[in-house]
Amino acid sequence: MKVFKQKLSSAEISAIIGGEKQEPSDILLNNVSEAQEANESSIIFCEQERLLEEVQASRAGLIITNQTFAKRLANRPIIIVDKPYFSFMSLVSYWLKLDADEQEYTIDPSAKIHPSVSFAGKVSIGANVIIKANCQIGDNVVIGENCYIDKEVSIGANSRLYPNVTIYERVHIGKECIIHSGVVIGADGFGFVLMDNRQQKIPQVGTVEIHDYVEIGANSTIDRATLGATVIGEGCKLDNLVQIGHNCVIGKHSILCAQVGLAGSTIVGDYVYLAGQVGAAGHITIGSRAMVGAQSGIAASLPEGGKYFGTPAIDANQMKRQIIAQKSLPDMYRIYRKKLKGEKCD
Amino acid sequence: MKVFKQKLSSAEISAIIGGEKQEPSDILLNNVSEAQEANESSIIFCEQERLLEEVQASRAGLIITNQTFAKRLANRPIIIVDKPYFSFMSLVSYWLKLDADEQEYTIDPSAKIHPSVSFAGKVSIGANVIIKANCQIGDNVVIGENCYIDKEVSIGANSRLYPNVTIYERVHIGKECIIHSGVVIGADGFGFVLMDNRQQKIPQVGTVEIHDYVEIGANSTIDRATLGATVIGEGCKLDNLVQIGHNCVIGKHSILCAQVGLAGSTIVGDYVYLAGQVGAAGHITIGSRAMVGAQSGIAASLPEGGKYFGTPAIDANQMKRQIIAQKSLPDMYRIYRKKLKGEKCD
Amino acid sequence: MKVFKQKLSSAEISAIIGGEKQEPSDILLNNVSEAQEANESSIIFCEQERLLEEVQASRAGLIITNQTFAKRLANRPIIIVDKPYFSFMSLVSYWLKLDADEQEYTIDPSAKIHPSVSFAGKVSIGANVIIKANCQIGDNVVIGENCYIDKEVSIGANSRLYPNVTIYERVHIGKECIIHSGVVIGADGFGFVLMDNRQQKIPQVGTVEIHDYVEIGANSTIDRATLGATVIGEGCKLDNLVQIGHNCVIGKHSILCAQVGLAGSTIVGDYVYLAGQVGAAGHITIGSRAMVGAQSGIAASLPEGGKYFGTPAIDANQMKRQIIAQKSLPDMYRIYRKKLKGEKCD
Repeated sequence: MKVFKQKLSSAEISAIIGGEKQEPSDILLNNVSEAQEANESSIIFCEQERLLEEVQASRAGLIITNQTFAKRLANRPIIIVDKPYFSFMSLVSYWLKLDADEQEYTIDPSAKIHPSVSFAGKVSIGANVIIKANCQIGDNVVIGENCYIDKEVSIGANSRLYPNVTIYERVHIGKECIIHSGVVIGADGFGFVLMDNRQQKIPQVGTVEIHDYVEIGANSTIDRATLGATVIGEGCKLDNLVQIGHNCVIGKHSILCAQVGLAGSTIVGDYVYLAGQVGAAGHITIGSRAMVGAQSGIAASLPEGGKYFGTPAIDANQMKRQIIAQKSLPDMYRIYRKKLKGEKCD
Repeated sequence: MKVFKQKLSSAEISAIIGGEKQEPSDILLNNVSEAQEANESSIIFCEQERLLEEVQASRAGLIITNQTFAKRLANRPIIIVDKPYFSFMSLVSYWLKLDADEQEYTIDPSAKIHPSVSFAGKVSIGANVIIKANCQIGDNVVIGENCYIDKEVSIGANSRLYPNVTIYERVHIGKECIIHSGVVIGADGFGFVLMDNRQQKIPQVGTVEIHDYVEIGANSTIDRATLGATVIGEGCKLDNLVQIGHNCVIGKHSILCAQVGLAGSTIVGDYVYLAGQVGAAGHITIGSRAMVGAQSGIAASLPEGGKYFGTPAIDANQMKRQIIAQKSLPDMYRIYRKKLKGEKCD
Repeated sequence: MKVFKQKLSSAEISAIIGGEKQEPSDILLNNVSEAQEANESSIIFCEQERLLEEVQASRAGLIITNQTFAKRLANRPIIIVDKPYFSFMSLVSYWLKLDADEQEYTIDPSAKIHPSVSFAGKVSIGANVIIKANCQIGDNVVIGENCYIDKEVSIGANSRLYPNVTIYERVHIGKECIIHSGVVIGADGFGFVLMDNRQQKIPQVGTVEIHDYVEIGANSTIDRATLGATVIGEGCKLDNLVQIGHNCVIGKHSILCAQVGLAGSTIVGDYVYLAGQVGAAGHITIGSRAMVGAQSGIAASLPEGGKYFGTPAIDANQMKRQIIAQKSLPDMYRIYRKKLKGEKCD
């Protein structure tokens, strides 16, 4: 349950999200919740058959639903819309902004900021933050507690770093980005060459460019390039514990789910979807709008727009047929063995 | 080798763990170790044939063993018990408590604690810790250095956060929990909807509930729910680098090994065992006492109590038969190809 | 593009890396870059056909290449060597050292260092660092901001911890090691025993030994041993988000790519190569110079020197044959089903 400080009446809510209001009383609501935990001041939504019973039994003060379910929620205060979940979430976004504390633009006195750092406007810098020489921090940037930002880093306007993020030197972060706690951006790419029976380090002198509107999940790691830049394109969303190797270049608006790993120099197109725990080999290209199923291992380049699955990843339908056939493999194998022995088998 | 400050005599040890003492001399011991590194003051244990030689050659001052091995450790100071490893580890636990420095209940002066934070008893707060408004900290809680705890978090009695843990707002942690370094609890769930060709963020306004007796390994991440709560049930143990998506609900006493990842809204029962690198799809249910082999990909709900393996995960025995049959697949394929060409093949 | 403060002439560069200089003019250069981003002061290299066009079109002031490509770079300032990439990277390493700011040997006043900590020489300790009792810090060690080092840890000469590293008590780190941000070394091994229907914690009283010349990538975790030590051998290189379970022992100069996970008590030989997302079961041995393909699941011990792939990992060539045969499995299965029905099928 998310309780907001400001209350909204059902009339106000109806004005915000549109839809048809079916209950005359105009009560005040102060929270959004799931059906089970709802109280008289809660707003919930209903659009799934399997959750209807819970909704009917809930104490929620207002239910956002659609025409299909409206009849089955007789005598309940409801607002009828086309897409209940979507309208509900739009309301939440609206309410969060309405309710937000006015951002305090303070720099905590314990922060250690090099005098050469430039601020393009008002910023919020938390306790124990360290910002090294020649960084450029945009307007309305929020840098959470315990973050470390090495020299010559730039962070665009309205970006937010949650506490405990580490940014190595010369990394560029665009505007409107969200970086969650524990993320490390710009650590050395993983490059070694065996010489005289030792792994000699290849210097990693490139950088990382995070474009605008990117969100990066907790404890993910994005390595700096050997030369040039590792690039995360505009609007990409990375989940937790994702690993991006050096010199990868990811296009726009792609989704990388949790624990995905890209080896070095992998090129990823726009609107690509990589499900959880997918791995990709280095020096390959994943075409735009490709969708790759969970745990797949991408061993070679994938064309645009297809669906892929498996290790090595192939066309998803083909892989599904293999998986179905595999279930009969032990029986097929038994017949095969009989044949080898010369027995009659069919 | 773990050296304790307080020494114990073999008589005292025998009194602590029970068992039959077979050596008259009553020497003082001060450490537990592996056989190879043992010295005259070491206690080791012996219950495996493959390690017997090392034990015989060791300089250990006392060996905890069972009847089977007792004869083969003639002239050595031994204590005979039913379960040597278990008794040995019970001794270690006992000794650790005996030896523990009296917990210093201090709040480091560098900690930044909001005046509204409530403490239910004595606590230990390390250097550079930040605790925001309205948090409730239980009795005997230890919060390690550099931890960040956002507003309205509660932490139950006797829980311990190792250094460098990040807790986002409104997370609840039960009593007797252990949270290792680098863990991030309560970061935003991974929810986006493509609208106008951009990934629009779905607000994540739920929370996380960690119940009592939970241990969470280093650098694991547990996301907050979209609505409601992501729940880790009583007594669950999570290893390192584990990812729990938003709205997952895990039952009691389940084990999640390292690098396991659960997508959103996955339901896990009680006493479930997920081996290393297992992934689970979202919106499925894993039945209580299910055991799932390493690297398995759980694509659909699994019934209670079975053993499962593979991607997609199926009955483990069936998967083993498939794996055996697969080894002959290249030969089967050769015959298949000959057949297609019309050659005689058997 | 990596810009250096000190400029080098092409004559100086030729003197550093050897090779044949083919352009009379002796211009001053100040950066290394990729071909596309190069300017008149850039050095680039060329040894791949597929990148030749980019190199020809680039504005680079100097190109390091070999005899094969020299002819196709007429009228460009070039230096001809046997191994362009290697020579280029040697130059970068040289230049980085030449250009390095003189290391400032300062201990930030905000660092909290127990009076019993010993320093073997000059060290650099960043802001907010915490070092507990009885640690031993070698000569020329650099400890980045926000690191936490628990009691009785030793760190060898010339080792570097990037910001935000956590080291638990009694861990030993050798000389010339590089530990990237977010790494956690020495957290409790993952050991529990089910007793009275609860997961009882097995105390983890061993330690971790990181030998000399080891590099550990961002957010990796290395657990302490139950007894004895978890060992990372000399010269090993671990990428990001790698998990090493308790009591693992890794030999010398092995490479573990990103997101690799080793369960407890796994023994890894020398010069082993584990590609990304490989998992290994516990209590097995991976022979020296074994190479294991990405995402493989090592379920049993592997002999020395082979190439392995798959889950469970087997000889890589055998696995490749299986993968090829699998593509025809749906067709084989169709014929098999016809046979079962008694239809003529070949």
